[in-house]
Amino acid sequence: MELTERRKRALGPAYELFYETPAHLVRGQGVWLWDADGRKYLDCYNNVASVGHCHPDVVAALAGQAATLNTHTRYLHENVIELSEKIASKMPGDLSVCMFVCTGTEANDLATRIARTVTGHKGMLASEFSYHGNSTLVYTLSTADSDERPDWLALFEAPCSYHLAFEGKNLLDGYVGSVRNAIGDLQNRGQQPAAIIIDSIFDCPGTIEAPPGYFPQVFKTVRDAGGLVIVDEVQAGYCRTGNHWWGFQHDSAVPDIVTLGKPMGGGHPLAGVVTTPDIAARFAASSDYFNTFGGNPVSAAVGKAVIDVIDAEGVLENVTRVGAHTRAGLQQLKNQYDIIGDVRGRGLFLSVELVKDRDSKVPAASTARKMADLMKDEGVLISTHGRYENTLKIRPPMVFSKENADQLLAALDVCLGRL
Amino acid sequence: MELTERRKRALGPAYELFYETPAHLVRGQGVWLWDADGRKYLDCYNNVASVGHCHPDVVAALAGQAATLNTHTRYLHENVIELSEKIASKMPGDLSVCMFVCTGTEANDLATRIARTVTGHKGMLASEFSYHGNSTLVYTLSTADSDERPDWLALFEAPCSYHLAFEGKNLLDGYVGSVRNAIGDLQNRGQQPAAIIIDSIFDCPGTIEAPPGYFPQVFKTVRDAGGLVIVDEVQAGYCRTGNHWWGFQHDSAVPDIVTLGKPMGGGHPLAGVVTTPDIAARFAASSDYFNTFGGNPVSAAVGKAVIDVIDAEGVLENVTRVGAHTRAGLQQLKNQYDIIGDVRGRGLFLSVELVKDRDSKVPAASTARKMADLMKDEGVLISTHGRYENTLKIRPPMVFSKENADQLLAALDVCLGRL
Repeated sequence: MELTERRKRALGPAYELFYETPAHLVRGQGVWLWDADGRKYLDCYNNVASVGHCHPDVVAALAGQAATLNTHTRYLHENVIELSEKIASKMPGDLSVCMFVCTGTEANDLATRIARTVTGHKGMLASEFSYHGNSTLVYTLSTADSDERPDWLALFEAPCSYHLAFEGKNLLDGYVGSVRNAIGDLQNRGQQPAAIIIDSIFDCPGTIEAPPGYFPQVFKTVRDAGGLVIVDEVQAGYCRTGNHWWGFQHDSAVPDIVTLGKPMGGGHPLAGVVTTPDIAARFAASSDYFNTFGGNPVSAAVGKAVIDVIDAEGVLENVTRVGAHTRAGLQQLKNQYDIIGDVRGRGLFLSVELVKDRDSKVPAASTARKMADLMKDEGVLISTHGRYENTLKIRPPMVFSKENADQLLAALDVCLGRL
Repeated sequence: MELTERRKRALGPAYELFYETPAHLVRGQGVWLWDADGRKYLDCYNNVASVGHCHPDVVAALAGQAATLNTHTRYLHENVIELSEKIASKMPGDLSVCMFVCTGTEANDLATRIARTVTGHKGMLASEFSYHGNSTLVYTLSTADSDERPDWLALFEAPCSYHLAFEGKNLLDGYVGSVRNAIGDLQNRGQQPAAIIIDSIFDCPGTIEAPPGYFPQVFKTVRDAGGLVIVDEVQAGYCRTGNHWWGFQHDSAVPDIVTLGKPMGGGHPLAGVVTTPDIAARFAASSDYFNTFGGNPVSAAVGKAVIDVIDAEGVLENVTRVGAHTRAGLQQLKNQYDIIGDVRGRGLFLSVELVKDRDSKVPAASTARKMADLMKDEGVLISTHGRYENTLKIRPPMVFSKENADQLLAALDVCLGRL
């Protein structure tokens, strides 16, 4: 039986595949992927392979620890402690306590549980068209996918400077006001905010960067109403945005809880929640926590190796430098092609929004999908996302070089020319 | 700084450790674990290391695939398909569609989401003193830990034949009646059952085996009320109970949804949901599903290797044989020591309940904790659990030999003699 057909039978129809003709990948190394026919692709999509596919140090850490011991956190082991200390050393302020889980979903679910336990409130604030994961709770916070709107949930607009949600207000006032209104919505329903859950770059609506001053004002607004601030760094963390380890560091405010995921294990299921000793103690006063696999010696060894590679290979500096180069190249393409309405993002977390017309900004969603397929034919893997499904999503492994960026930009040029 | 102190700082106080003097383990092989001082322990606790610690085939599959490719299920890859087909080949009836996640928690959360989507109901039935995981939703279904009792949740009594929940009724009528009453409770609150979530051996209350006929009657009762049956095999699955691959196969009824976890990756974060093509299709009609790490090529390679080892090494037959031998030995100890009130379980999923007095059945909880510490001093790792915290939990890696069992039984004899 053909592979796609066998897959449909084995996994059921809820599983989707990328591309009109699915990619059947068999090998990866650094920024490169190969398919079953031996075709080589430049990977400009997979942020999970954060330090490159199959990085030898990460593989060695995984294989070495798996051959030695793999238990859980109810026995003492150095690895989970050292991983926690390494993460804390990359965090500002008082964010020094780590709790380990296996997925970004579990991290955001646990962060919500902690915020609710600590505040005694149930209300949550999430942005329009967000994605935070897929547990029953977190799926409800993933407003792009779920249409459930329980009374404890209120939505605010992500601070998009391209599609303005407000007229006649300046950007900051309009969007901070949206958070204030959401808190008011909760309170009108008799709910108080436990927390806001917020991306440091809003990924799902199409890579939206907050204007300067937005996060400090939003954090203060939520805290004044008795809520905590959960920043979701599952996408943006681990140097992805350049210049800083964490996306929220592009502004001056420090969250109460930070959630980590995708890049953390370079592909291994590893995620975490980072908070302050005070919040950790207040949570522990009424609840213990155990995750069978979370923070086990193997997962922790992998987590340590990823951080060590980032430090040893100057990955943060690379993201800053190559990210700026890539973004400048995308801007250049915008000057050439009217279909590009906007270029957004920081570091190697970049998006290109396609529109039918620059004045009306009507989304060119089918063209975006077509671009992803054309790019694949050119040997470059990207994908699409965004509130209007019209945005090219560019998030390569962070060991992406200037030369890789030039290949991406040249392929985009070719494919945009073919539209 | 001392390791325990560093750990407390790094992970916060919500993390607990086993034993009065925590075990600092550094190496594992088969059924053996070694601590930092070079002391060797017989592992009679860790079911996650299902085919033994650091099984070379499992480590090789992990290391080999991690060095080759690790992406996700939005590209085609053989491994996830082959893993699903292997699991389906071990399942009875129509249970042929697998969806992959990273933890038992995620599996039970997704199973609940599927049941709710497919039935259009919200109500859930869970047993008293259950544990199904720790997402916000699943924690609520974990009635041993959570004290939240939302209107969509109704509880039934696990069919314990030692501590009877009913007087003047036969076992089956009493306990099936408890499920019927729980459905009535839901309906009185205007809720209809989406599903029952039920262990095939009730783990958390202290390894309770259902009497013959219980599962068929319970499944029918729930289905008659419009609900689905989710059997949680996170603990009992993968040959753990002997004679059969799955715990529910000790009786004749087949569930609608089965959840898998702990033993599935031999320590690697791998879990899953198995259901019928019909239910999978009805779920997919209104929802897609994607889990970043779930079913990735590395996780799936590990999952395949575990099944292959079970088949190649005759692990199921070993569990059946050594489990019966161990249980007989525990019964023998019961004849010698009055403190043993009951011996329960199947295969290598065994429990010994300690009581102060056989007539009154008053739980000997502090003695059970002391026994775990004494056993550790004797070089044998066990733990405690149970509704009254007075039950010794014995769940070794499934490659446990008759000789290993005799060492366990001898150590129990020594420690019981010292009480």
